[in-house]
Amino acid sequence: MATNRVYNFSAGPSMLPEWVLERASSEMLCYGSSGQSVMEMSHRSSAFEQIIGDCEASLRRALSIPEGYRVLFLQGGASSQFAMVPLNLLTRSGKADYVITGQWAKKAWQQGRVYGECRVVASSEDRTYSYIPQVDPAQLDPAADYLHICYNNTIYGTTFSPRTLPVSGSVPLVADMSSSILSEPVDISRFGLIYAGAQKNMGPAGLTVVIIREDLIGHAMEKTPIMFDYKTHAGAGSMYNTPPTYAIYICKLVLDWLQGPMGGLEQMAQRNREKAELLYDYLDQSRLFSPTVQGEDRSLMNVPFVTGDPALDAAFVKEAEQAGLVNLKGHRSVGGMRASIYNAMPIEGVKKLVAFMQAFESDHR
Amino acid sequence: MATNRVYNFSAGPSMLPEWVLERASSEMLCYGSSGQSVMEMSHRSSAFEQIIGDCEASLRRALSIPEGYRVLFLQGGASSQFAMVPLNLLTRSGKADYVITGQWAKKAWQQGRVYGECRVVASSEDRTYSYIPQVDPAQLDPAADYLHICYNNTIYGTTFSPRTLPVSGSVPLVADMSSSILSEPVDISRFGLIYAGAQKNMGPAGLTVVIIREDLIGHAMEKTPIMFDYKTHAGAGSMYNTPPTYAIYICKLVLDWLQGPMGGLEQMAQRNREKAELLYDYLDQSRLFSPTVQGEDRSLMNVPFVTGDPALDAAFVKEAEQAGLVNLKGHRSVGGMRASIYNAMPIEGVKKLVAFMQAFESDHR
Repeated sequence: MATNRVYNFSAGPSMLPEWVLERASSEMLCYGSSGQSVMEMSHRSSAFEQIIGDCEASLRRALSIPEGYRVLFLQGGASSQFAMVPLNLLTRSGKADYVITGQWAKKAWQQGRVYGECRVVASSEDRTYSYIPQVDPAQLDPAADYLHICYNNTIYGTTFSPRTLPVSGSVPLVADMSSSILSEPVDISRFGLIYAGAQKNMGPAGLTVVIIREDLIGHAMEKTPIMFDYKTHAGAGSMYNTPPTYAIYICKLVLDWLQGPMGGLEQMAQRNREKAELLYDYLDQSRLFSPTVQGEDRSLMNVPFVTGDPALDAAFVKEAEQAGLVNLKGHRSVGGMRASIYNAMPIEGVKKLVAFMQAFESDHR
Repeated sequence: MATNRVYNFSAGPSMLPEWVLERASSEMLCYGSSGQSVMEMSHRSSAFEQIIGDCEASLRRALSIPEGYRVLFLQGGASSQFAMVPLNLLTRSGKADYVITGQWAKKAWQQGRVYGECRVVASSEDRTYSYIPQVDPAQLDPAADYLHICYNNTIYGTTFSPRTLPVSGSVPLVADMSSSILSEPVDISRFGLIYAGAQKNMGPAGLTVVIIREDLIGHAMEKTPIMFDYKTHAGAGSMYNTPPTYAIYICKLVLDWLQGPMGGLEQMAQRNREKAELLYDYLDQSRLFSPTVQGEDRSLMNVPFVTGDPALDAAFVKEAEQAGLVNLKGHRSVGGMRASIYNAMPIEGVKKLVAFMQAFESDHR
């Protein structure tokens, strides 16, 4: 890493690969032979059409997105999807099931309720969302228009896995994957719709990616704003109006990096498992720091931990920052610390963090 | 201008000042002493709070935005505002008046009609929107919730002016200023709400600025998506969810440029008038090229012109591109050519364009 840069453990926006930033910097005044910055390009130009086309193709390749799914490049973050999902999908039975695994899942449910009968089928609110609740298939409504989950819970450091993923039968499974997309392979065919803000593993804030099964497009409620109808964007190749062109370009560079020097998604996942293990292994034997999540629900991306002493937590965060390990403060609802170790966090950053924690532990026991 | 760069006459996204691109490039891996790219910064960090705060303060200063108005940094483009405006404002009488001066104004009206009684009070559709229609104050509904206009019409090259601006009395005037904001001073107090996509005069695509009178906030219709309620964003300093942080940073740099080396908005306006005069003066005496708009309705930002011969138009566009004057093709609804000469287009670019047109005219008469 460049010597003037820090290891940034922010929950998002978060680190981007230097490989990407260096390219973006060098191409800022002139992209290829275009004589323009990507920021200055008409979205209708052939140069930009190539960029957005490459970005989609690269995402489809990385995630093995099957035929029959559309990829949409939208704006407004996951918070906009909290409304777009019900406005577009809650139109057959008018009923949907939600699993509440954290603040964002709850916000999705609260927004969904405005548009139909949205039921909570499982929740881990009883223990500050520190685990993934079991979803009993018998409890699911077979007539629901969808079942909504938040796949990885950024604040609490929990994640669904292929094993804990609810089996929803013919009910489309809808997942907020903002903080886990592209961290490891997922079987897209298990989902009806996946959405993700870009600012954790894909690029800058201001871009939202939606992967949607084609049969779920075209059923929006009456009076749905044109810009909130998936059909508007699917029918126009995400260019109904000007898309966030520069964010799409950065996302393309991130995918180039992932599938170029990083060797692809399977290798990325292996690296992510190594990073997470380093940190969890240390936490599990530490006498000062405790992880807040146990067992198989542990996220590969967000690792919360506490000392149990708020003053010591604060001292740790402050000293870590001075050592170039920044944004380790935990979310106020959990307290303590949180290390977000997305794809772009090098393993050296995690090693440096663990070494720093060991030294801090020696000093404070 | 750097030698490998072109003069880009695109209608938007469009040219950005090299001064801005150079700073963005040099700060891409490390902003100040932060050790991070702005793209990587938590939106809750003090470094980013400073950026968004400076951006708003700078915009307020540039446009002399009075007390009693809020500035919101949103996503989704003007097309999202076509729905947000009625969802938030069409809630007292449920009636609004629209002036139709082009395709975008018409789209705004079509979206507005979904939410209430939206009346067309004037239109220039009869002559391909080549003029600004007079709005008879007697025709306006004094009970309307708002009167909507598109201030500058990007496709057709027409603009309202302080003189032709409708006098709407106590009815809030709502204006789409996407392609004219920051091109010259405007009296903000004449408007209830102004919105603008950033990608012409303010920064990259993916950022939408809304300037709204405070009393118009907080009256959204039932079932308005949370993200489409101005109150959501006004109450959270545009940080209800992650804003398009990098686009806001570039917007701040553009405002730094405008009020630094460019000398402020009044001087920018003077420069814009000079650029437009250069082009219109040539067009008015040319025997080959004709401007499509006459008199005081002429836009300072978008200048459409035709030869009357589609084959010759195409040859011109192609040869101009070879000479480093790109994106001069007109919109298909007008045909011919269009030179968009936003703030960041240097006067040298307009001079080079006029010289090229003169040479082309000599060759083709």
